Amino acid sequence: MVIRCKAAVLWKPGAPLAIEEVEVAPPKAKEVRVKIVATGICGTDIKSMDTKEFSQFCPIIMGHEGAGIVESVGEEVSTVRTAGDKVIILCIPQCGECDTCLNSKSNICAEIKVSERHLTSEDTSRITCKGKFLHQYIATGTLSEYTVIREISVAKIDEGAPLEKVFVIGCGFATGYGAAINSAKVTPGSTCVVFGLGCVGLSVIIGCKAAGAARIIAVDINKDKFAKASSVGATFCVDPQDFDKSIEEFLIDMLNGGADFCFEVTGKTETVATALGSCHKDHGVCVIVGSLGSWSNITINSQLFISARILKASVLGDWKTKEELPKLVSDYMAKKFNLDRLITHTLTLSEVNEAVQLMKSGQCIRCVLLP
Amino acid sequence: MVIRCKAAVLWKPGAPLAIEEVEVAPPKAKEVRVKIVATGICGTDIKSMDTKEFSQFCPIIMGHEGAGIVESVGEEVSTVRTAGDKVIILCIPQCGECDTCLNSKSNICAEIKVSERHLTSEDTSRITCKGKFLHQYIATGTLSEYTVIREISVAKIDEGAPLEKVFVIGCGFATGYGAAINSAKVTPGSTCVVFGLGCVGLSVIIGCKAAGAARIIAVDINKDKFAKASSVGATFCVDPQDFDKSIEEFLIDMLNGGADFCFEVTGKTETVATALGSCHKDHGVCVIVGSLGSWSNITINSQLFISARILKASVLGDWKTKEELPKLVSDYMAKKFNLDRLITHTLTLSEVNEAVQLMKSGQCIRCVLLP
Repeated sequence: MVIRCKAAVLWKPGAPLAIEEVEVAPPKAKEVRVKIVATGICGTDIKSMDTKEFSQFCPIIMGHEGAGIVESVGEEVSTVRTAGDKVIILCIPQCGECDTCLNSKSNICAEIKVSERHLTSEDTSRITCKGKFLHQYIATGTLSEYTVIREISVAKIDEGAPLEKVFVIGCGFATGYGAAINSAKVTPGSTCVVFGLGCVGLSVIIGCKAAGAARIIAVDINKDKFAKASSVGATFCVDPQDFDKSIEEFLIDMLNGGADFCFEVTGKTETVATALGSCHKDHGVCVIVGSLGSWSNITINSQLFISARILKASVLGDWKTKEELPKLVSDYMAKKFNLDRLITHTLTLSEVNEAVQLMKSGQCIRCVLLP
Repeated sequence: MVIRCKAAVLWKPGAPLAIEEVEVAPPKAKEVRVKIVATGICGTDIKSMDTKEFSQFCPIIMGHEGAGIVESVGEEVSTVRTAGDKVIILCIPQCGECDTCLNSKSNICAEIKVSERHLTSEDTSRITCKGKFLHQYIATGTLSEYTVIREISVAKIDEGAPLEKVFVIGCGFATGYGAAINSAKVTPGSTCVVFGLGCVGLSVIIGCKAAGAARIIAVDINKDKFAKASSVGATFCVDPQDFDKSIEEFLIDMLNGGADFCFEVTGKTETVATALGSCHKDHGVCVIVGSLGSWSNITINSQLFISARILKASVLGDWKTKEELPKLVSDYMAKKFNLDRLITHTLTLSEVNEAVQLMKSGQCIRCVLLP
């Protein structure tokens, strides 16, 4: 049976999100229809929404970070029950069968190709609006009361998990925490620098602290974020605008040659070179955590590579999603880390454009939207 | 006593090298005066010689790859004898005392700061011409009958070593071979791609083969280099100009997703993105081996980092020079590898501009110049 409900639709890049009534068809084989209970907006949504080239995917339901309850399942679904299971949405699927899923070094399942086209499956979606089929952002589209996604893009989580908290594990928290723990493999006693103090950057700090870093330097051009950064583990906060020399020079002086680990979490391509240049030339590792978008170029002076620095990326914290995100939810339940400091505002789906503005202005870390 | 001798001097970028009579003063404390017996020109010399910004270091004696015999030593020199020792020139010094020399992860000794200013020591050199003091390229300046360099920039080698062969271990061979063995840590059975088949690229192939790579793909736009590449270990040679699709697409198709290890050895910044893009997205490691020069920018589409690819650089093959290059000379003496295929032409110092042309036209792999 088709469900009629509300969703936040982007009709063209640069436009505000429109709350529309949409039709959500029943799930087909290996698909699941989920009632979204809690969802967020992250910088990646906002970057796409403002990018001209993104028009090829419009109209589209935005959002990719969410948690909910299974409403119904299609045929051949075995990992969630017919209805009632609590699930977290996986913005990278884990099919379990492709070369990547069978290869322990990466989490980028081959089925991400469907996500890159922002569809439910192959060449279509299950959702329509005013007679037009809608794309679903990163094959999820969580800014909707209901969505249909592939079984490989949801994972069953603890029955007792508070969805209005753990939804953020689906993207922001997993991305940052995993970048420190899995991608950089931060070592005890090390020195870390985190550029950008949004939800992901703060989650990197939480990860660095959990890994035993001795010094965690938090960098942002918005000083309002410093108190929060300190509260989750930063040992020193700095605004690059506060002095004449460059932030690289400042950090290299302060850290006796540079950091052991630097994390670029601003999502700005310019900051990649800054973060790389702030790494110690003998052994520093720079991890690109911020989503830079698909249409941007990174420019790095080749001088920075007359060194033993390493540059790598981290996508969704290198977690094997279907297998590992439910474990992160359990870790949260076991109080291994705290998400309260990340979720600063609670709004409804119809207030989604306010949430976008709160994000853009740096006033909120993460809004939870309750459809 | 001052030695008067011939040297190849660059008076300004873009000009041919001038064979000049120069005055080489005696070595001061911790310095060594060396009679150069064999020297080469590498792509790094040529790139600097043609770079406008390099004018700040002119006039300068070029050359940084060489071997010779100690003529005299200054005070406080202990690692080579007064005269007669065979030595290899180290274009990266190893002081043995700085943080880097004491840190096993890098070979970029802090004393490289003098090399970067192309001086013998601190703020001067021991060599003059027509009343002007001359810079020495990378603090060495091997395109000269005699040179004065710091003790930390020479290493005593086997008495029986043929200098007209082992001089190439000083830069070209060590750079390529070490990039495969030390920097990439090529694994047995792996797939490697080498972009650029000059002396360094061929040495990378020798290193990949020694490390047990199963497939070694050699890429160059000059097919004349393919026979040589095959002779040192390439299993397949390809000219990117031979087909319509990009070399990345070709390699990703051929290698089922991309290479385990890619080496950029063309010295062109554009090829960095190509080499990175030819790495397998799940685990590929791209090593920048070619010297890109200090004034150039690398541009990489951020899409390439939506992956687990790793980008790193390798400087002089990551060898701790003073300690390890003599061991490579001994390995050569023990026939662990062959240098004959790299050294294709023999010329005199006065024919240095011909050697430059042979390099630029791709006709030679390495010329040995016998001053």
